[in-house]
Amino acid sequence: MPLIPTPHLLVDAAVVRRNLARLADYCTQHRIGLRPHTKTHKSQRLGSMQMELGAVGLTVAKVGEAETMADVCDDLLLAYPAVDPARCERLAELAEHVTVRVAIDSAFAINALGEAARSEATTLGILVDLDVGFGRTGVQTIEQSLEMAQLADQTDGLRLDGLFIYPGHIGSPPSEQIAALAAVSAKTGAAIELWKQHGLNTGIVSGGSTPTALQSHLVPQVTEIRPGTYIYNDLNTTYRGYCTLDDCAARIVCTVVSDAVPGKVVIDAGSKTLTSDRNAAGEQHGYGLVVEYPRAKIVRLSEEHGEIDIRDCDRPPVVGARVSVIPNHICPCVNLQDQVWWKDGEIVEAITVDARGMLT
Amino acid sequence: MPLIPTPHLLVDAAVVRRNLARLADYCTQHRIGLRPHTKTHKSQRLGSMQMELGAVGLTVAKVGEAETMADVCDDLLLAYPAVDPARCERLAELAEHVTVRVAIDSAFAINALGEAARSEATTLGILVDLDVGFGRTGVQTIEQSLEMAQLADQTDGLRLDGLFIYPGHIGSPPSEQIAALAAVSAKTGAAIELWKQHGLNTGIVSGGSTPTALQSHLVPQVTEIRPGTYIYNDLNTTYRGYCTLDDCAARIVCTVVSDAVPGKVVIDAGSKTLTSDRNAAGEQHGYGLVVEYPRAKIVRLSEEHGEIDIRDCDRPPVVGARVSVIPNHICPCVNLQDQVWWKDGEIVEAITVDARGMLT
Repeated sequence: MPLIPTPHLLVDAAVVRRNLARLADYCTQHRIGLRPHTKTHKSQRLGSMQMELGAVGLTVAKVGEAETMADVCDDLLLAYPAVDPARCERLAELAEHVTVRVAIDSAFAINALGEAARSEATTLGILVDLDVGFGRTGVQTIEQSLEMAQLADQTDGLRLDGLFIYPGHIGSPPSEQIAALAAVSAKTGAAIELWKQHGLNTGIVSGGSTPTALQSHLVPQVTEIRPGTYIYNDLNTTYRGYCTLDDCAARIVCTVVSDAVPGKVVIDAGSKTLTSDRNAAGEQHGYGLVVEYPRAKIVRLSEEHGEIDIRDCDRPPVVGARVSVIPNHICPCVNLQDQVWWKDGEIVEAITVDARGMLT
Repeated sequence: MPLIPTPHLLVDAAVVRRNLARLADYCTQHRIGLRPHTKTHKSQRLGSMQMELGAVGLTVAKVGEAETMADVCDDLLLAYPAVDPARCERLAELAEHVTVRVAIDSAFAINALGEAARSEATTLGILVDLDVGFGRTGVQTIEQSLEMAQLADQTDGLRLDGLFIYPGHIGSPPSEQIAALAAVSAKTGAAIELWKQHGLNTGIVSGGSTPTALQSHLVPQVTEIRPGTYIYNDLNTTYRGYCTLDDCAARIVCTVVSDAVPGKVVIDAGSKTLTSDRNAAGEQHGYGLVVEYPRAKIVRLSEEHGEIDIRDCDRPPVVGARVSVIPNHICPCVNLQDQVWWKDGEIVEAITVDARGMLT
């Protein structure tokens, strides 16, 4: 086949399979349900692959993603507080066809979802989002979680299914995660105890993301987890100790388009391809790793230009050469592509990013 | 009409018209050609509007953008060093139908473009990119620019059309731009003088972007400019002194989805909507301005969550409320949308972002 024009996102199928199997095996071993977050890949085909490996269902952030994944999975969790009528209505409609659960942290959301479910004569499952330290969403105290659970339990159209936590504040290497996860477990356990005293359903306890995924057993209350990035990995999951560079399955293939400025070359991938996301190791680590030139550093991005400092390279790349970049954060990079290129041995084919740009 | 689901990008037509007219009038007054960069809006309809206001042609960054804009404009500048065969071939094909010029800074690019043009029996115009201080692309010395011009001039299939500069390093307020632009003018003038001594065509001298657009007359060699952001404006062009907040025509309309964490609310626009681009005023200024709550601050983004510190707000927004955000950098935000919503008085309609995601 002819060369795929640059920039494009190339995925190593063998590494994806290994990444998927690694976490699926861990979850089987520890009897934890795996509900992959599809925000990372946004592709039905990859969601199907995750289901075939034993996932209990799929996780999504937006309703458009839910509608997309409903074609390949009948058990979906919206890990996002739907509160506006448009989202709630679409979720209630979707619940005619598949199981839909929503993580919420406000009475407003419960009322809005209940109204939509009643209007569509469907049932939406509710998980109460309890903040265990990240400080983004989630009720703050176990008493608030009880109130929220009671309200959901009493709301027609809704079914209380359990708790939702997100230990996103735990970014350190696995060795340092133990104490932090013990605190998460203590708060989660206390909430469950309180709910049980009030006869409420704590059947599902939905936990964590990729960085802490392999430590999920340290929060034994968790019944399922929802990592996303683990399918591809990136510099963030590498620097956070979840994986090594060899586990990074997705690379942006670029062409060097200029070497006119001394000490630099420019690639045809800027912020509209790599995004401006920084990485977990800090700003000084640039905007991605140039695989073939590990001593090069992507120091500045314009929209379509990536400037690489090549002063430490013995033989820097020349104009016209192709290089591969492992991005800081793969998820928003995928969202900028209409397709990723799936390289399986000698065969390369396009996989559509079905839910690309689905913001609502 | 029903409420447009959030997040969405709402454009005030009256402000766009005023922004377009302001710069068109300036260019008419100073007899400078205006060749708007369409990377900002990526819409044929808006490109047409710019042409109707007297633009001499349109600027693009990628070949896909060129192919899109060729439907509404017959004179295009690719402000980007095309070097790979795929890009060069498509440009040469496009040159069968419209005038195509390319800014280059390497012999490699000249050879690749010449070969493609000869293969398609078309002619590509060449502008030689001379670095005037930004240090991204562009030959470093006027002597190098002469060599490059001579090579282009002697290459079959190519037509030397002039010089290309980008004073992107000049980000300060207009009052501080004068000395910097004098230096740009000196280098540009010296290059032109040298080229003329060798009988080379300096007919086009393509200059600057939005921040310095209204100072373009301070580089009197410039025959045309290629600003992009001026159509919408954003916090960057505001902080750089090009405009005021009232000139920011595009806003991301969001819904508050959580207020569970004290001192914060969360909106449904994160890095997949606002991008992680910082602004010209520095990191402490967050990820956008919440128009209705100017004392609020967008302090952290996840992919779909925007966390707003509302501790300085007397009456912070509540869950379910809508707020409008002026982004730091509008161009990559537009590229994340399939359409923008054009509000013209009481009428709101979708304008397709035709060249969204065109990376090649």
